[in-house]
Amino acid sequence: MSNGDIFVGEVIGTAILILFGAGVCAAVTLRYSKARASGWIVIAFGWGFGVLAGAYTAAPLSGGQLNPAVTLGIAVDTGEWGKVWVYLLGQMAGAMLGAVLCYLTYFAQFQANVREKGTTEGTAEEPLPTLGIFSTIPEIRNPVANLITEIIATVALVLPILAFGLTQGLGESGTLVLIVSLLVVGIGLSLGGPTGYAINPARDLGPRIVHTFLPIPNKGTSDWGYAWIPVVGPLIGGALAGLVYNAAF
Amino acid sequence: MSNGDIFVGEVIGTAILILFGAGVCAAVTLRYSKARASGWIVIAFGWGFGVLAGAYTAAPLSGGQLNPAVTLGIAVDTGEWGKVWVYLLGQMAGAMLGAVLCYLTYFAQFQANVREKGTTEGTAEEPLPTLGIFSTIPEIRNPVANLITEIIATVALVLPILAFGLTQGLGESGTLVLIVSLLVVGIGLSLGGPTGYAINPARDLGPRIVHTFLPIPNKGTSDWGYAWIPVVGPLIGGALAGLVYNAAF
Amino acid sequence: MSNGDIFVGEVIGTAILILFGAGVCAAVTLRYSKARASGWIVIAFGWGFGVLAGAYTAAPLSGGQLNPAVTLGIAVDTGEWGKVWVYLLGQMAGAMLGAVLCYLTYFAQFQANVREKGTTEGTAEEPLPTLGIFSTIPEIRNPVANLITEIIATVALVLPILAFGLTQGLGESGTLVLIVSLLVVGIGLSLGGPTGYAINPARDLGPRIVHTFLPIPNKGTSDWGYAWIPVVGPLIGGALAGLVYNAAF
Amino acid sequence: MSNGDIFVGEVIGTAILILFGAGVCAAVTLRYSKARASGWIVIAFGWGFGVLAGAYTAAPLSGGQLNPAVTLGIAVDTGEWGKVWVYLLGQMAGAMLGAVLCYLTYFAQFQANVREKGTTEGTAEEPLPTLGIFSTIPEIRNPVANLITEIIATVALVLPILAFGLTQGLGESGTLVLIVSLLVVGIGLSLGGPTGYAINPARDLGPRIVHTFLPIPNKGTSDWGYAWIPVVGPLIGGALAGLVYNAAF
Repeated sequence: MSNGDIFVGEVIGTAILILFGAGVCAAVTLRYSKARASGWIVIAFGWGFGVLAGAYTAAPLSGGQLNPAVTLGIAVDTGEWGKVWVYLLGQMAGAMLGAVLCYLTYFAQFQANVREKGTTEGTAEEPLPTLGIFSTIPEIRNPVANLITEIIATVALVLPILAFGLTQGLGESGTLVLIVSLLVVGIGLSLGGPTGYAINPARDLGPRIVHTFLPIPNKGTSDWGYAWIPVVGPLIGGALAGLVYNAAF
Repeated sequence: MSNGDIFVGEVIGTAILILFGAGVCAAVTLRYSKARASGWIVIAFGWGFGVLAGAYTAAPLSGGQLNPAVTLGIAVDTGEWGKVWVYLLGQMAGAMLGAVLCYLTYFAQFQANVREKGTTEGTAEEPLPTLGIFSTIPEIRNPVANLITEIIATVALVLPILAFGLTQGLGESGTLVLIVSLLVVGIGLSLGGPTGYAINPARDLGPRIVHTFLPIPNKGTSDWGYAWIPVVGPLIGGALAGLVYNAAF
Repeated sequence: MSNGDIFVGEVIGTAILILFGAGVCAAVTLRYSKARASGWIVIAFGWGFGVLAGAYTAAPLSGGQLNPAVTLGIAVDTGEWGKVWVYLLGQMAGAMLGAVLCYLTYFAQFQANVREKGTTEGTAEEPLPTLGIFSTIPEIRNPVANLITEIIATVALVLPILAFGLTQGLGESGTLVLIVSLLVVGIGLSLGGPTGYAINPARDLGPRIVHTFLPIPNKGTSDWGYAWIPVVGPLIGGALAGLVYNAAF
Repeated sequence: MSNGDIFVGEVIGTAILILFGAGVCAAVTLRYSKARASGWIVIAFGWGFGVLAGAYTAAPLSGGQLNPAVTLGIAVDTGEWGKVWVYLLGQMAGAMLGAVLCYLTYFAQFQANVREKGTTEGTAEEPLPTLGIFSTIPEIRNPVANLITEIIATVALVLPILAFGLTQGLGESGTLVLIVSLLVVGIGLSLGGPTGYAINPARDLGPRIVHTFLPIPNKGTSDWGYAWIPVVGPLIGGALAGLVYNAAF
């Protein structure tokens, strides 16, 4: 695969992933959405099928990694580091593009995120913070615990992906893409409770940058103080998965 | 494939798609349905498995496109326009047939859509508008924003379908049909919040025509002022996906 | 396949189908069940994965038809009627066995279906009717409309199954079993609202016989006046699907 | 497969299974979890996709049995008992490891399981018992009925797995892993209501041991009086499935 193909594939694939993932958070969160308050099952399947859509679209171009933690885990496993920077650039650019596409898809809903006439403070008609649509926010703010959660959840993503690759080629089989997407649904359902399962540095950092600059009414904080955890945690988890895989398989 | 096979395949496949899709909206919306108020997860999976049922049934006859936006995207990609009109005719006829079948399936429920004795205005026992069972209605009426939403959501449908076709033949593989149907579930979950995700001109226009003529009690408006958006938006999206695909892959 | 293998396969497969299907209705309906009131999405997936479990288990022995409407549709399509009676016998015996197994699985829950001390009439602590766990009950009792609903829903089951068989062998492929099971999920979500989607004469009649004889406390009526509709409707639907398939494909 | 590979595979695979399974129970149960109170559909899919993740990861090393009842059923079927002890050791060690990983993932949530200031007894802000996150608890405590429930549910797991193995190799096919994981979702939805579907001695006993020793605030009882049922029931069910399989297939 040429550097150009890898870059384009990762941009398109990660953009689709984030469009679906941020999209489902917008769908469940925003007023005037048909899916409002439809619950965690919708969030988890929305992100998982975003992986399905993005990974299979990107597969013929770049293999569809879409996640620096996956790229790092594969590099640790294979020892091939030459193309890692191309993957990372594509993933970051794609994540930012996807966040902008989500903003455009829900444009009227974001514009309606204003205080309704005659509303008193603390009611459901007040504007809502919007960061949770773009990036992760922990339920309990505890850096060590949050970091451990992200590390374990990322190992639970990357170790199976590496093992899947042992029995079939990564990203060339529809069944494999399907399994990886359902794996991501499972991580969301089971391990997403404490931190919202970033498990992907580009998925969290790219949309956070976009959130910082987008002119969303009443958008609230972009919470940069937390931003390092969903970057560092998944990178540690990806590398750890590569090491465990090399030791065990 | 002969024109006759294509027409029959698209009629049957699109009819099944709309029977399931309109059916799940009827199931969730209508009083005296066992699935009443069962939420967005039911809507999204119902439409997705309608694609599964329709596409796999139609596959041996017509390839199971079932959507003018998909047909347009494939034509832009391949440059073959000769059979497009056969697909479109079959899709429109099938969508109308499917809407009638949904009406028959929920006949007693539609007949019961009347004011209950002693009901005062504005209560849950009043008749409900029925257009949302047949065609899409935006949450916030904003033509430019609604059009953009439909364009992006349709690109998110057609671009992966074109890319899937690169690695495997379209419509001849059970796994591929499964992935496309879960892709449609994902689009519903993630991108359906603002406009109800038409992403298919026949899916919206055919049932809207049927809704206009069916003798449903208290059926409410057929909202023809909005009807052009779920036709034009998906067509732009399908063509755009074809162009992006040709440029990137 | 020998008559003995067919009979044993259909008994085991249909028993598993009904154990899961009646089981999920018990899980959602009965007091003191962890899944109580968990909604239509649980019902539809429970029945669908019952098809998955039953059909794949039965596949090596009998092909896993598990449904007289499917058997009839295949006979109309192929013209081979010699083994139909073996399939029907196995399906009826299996459905009755599955209903008994469901009763045993939820034995303590059925025994607890009694009026709680100090309960007044019309409250949630009263005993509940139990027929809905075993057999279907229409939301609106209208024989013609109920029959049409069952016919259409059964065509929507059998026509795709016949078409699936055209591209791959029936019951020998995991992917095919998966697609059929998700098709059944879709029929439940989309077309189950009016009558509870029997779409299978054995699925309704077998458990109704068992319900008539089981010593369940406060079990309520077995509603034999309705019993012909979920038998005749699916049989008409299955035959109709066979005729449509022969004409169109 | 060497004893070392089997042991490592079963440890890793069972640890992933329990991390997901106990994790989804923590996600739905604990305060300050994003998935709190998201219902039975989340529980059932979380456990099922835990099987998907664990079985496919373990497949190249050990075949991914992850369950003493499955191991017993295969041994009864094949008559090969020599490696059974290696599987059991790995499964127990993995189940305990997975429970610890779940504890670490939800560490901050477990630490927050304390009485909130100013809370009166019997309110939602009181500490909750935590055993249900680790091990199963029956809704109605009735040893004979609970045992029968676990036996039937385990037969419904192991008999299809044995039959699946007849048409395809166990654990080497992505489609097969997918079907087994959806089978487990189905068992949860349909048969989990009375006892919480242990259907796996290691899944229940390993985490119960860990629960006994972990320093969780207000953790409540480990309920050792019930512990024999989710061990003995699944073992009887697994052996019974092997016998039925040998007789019928």
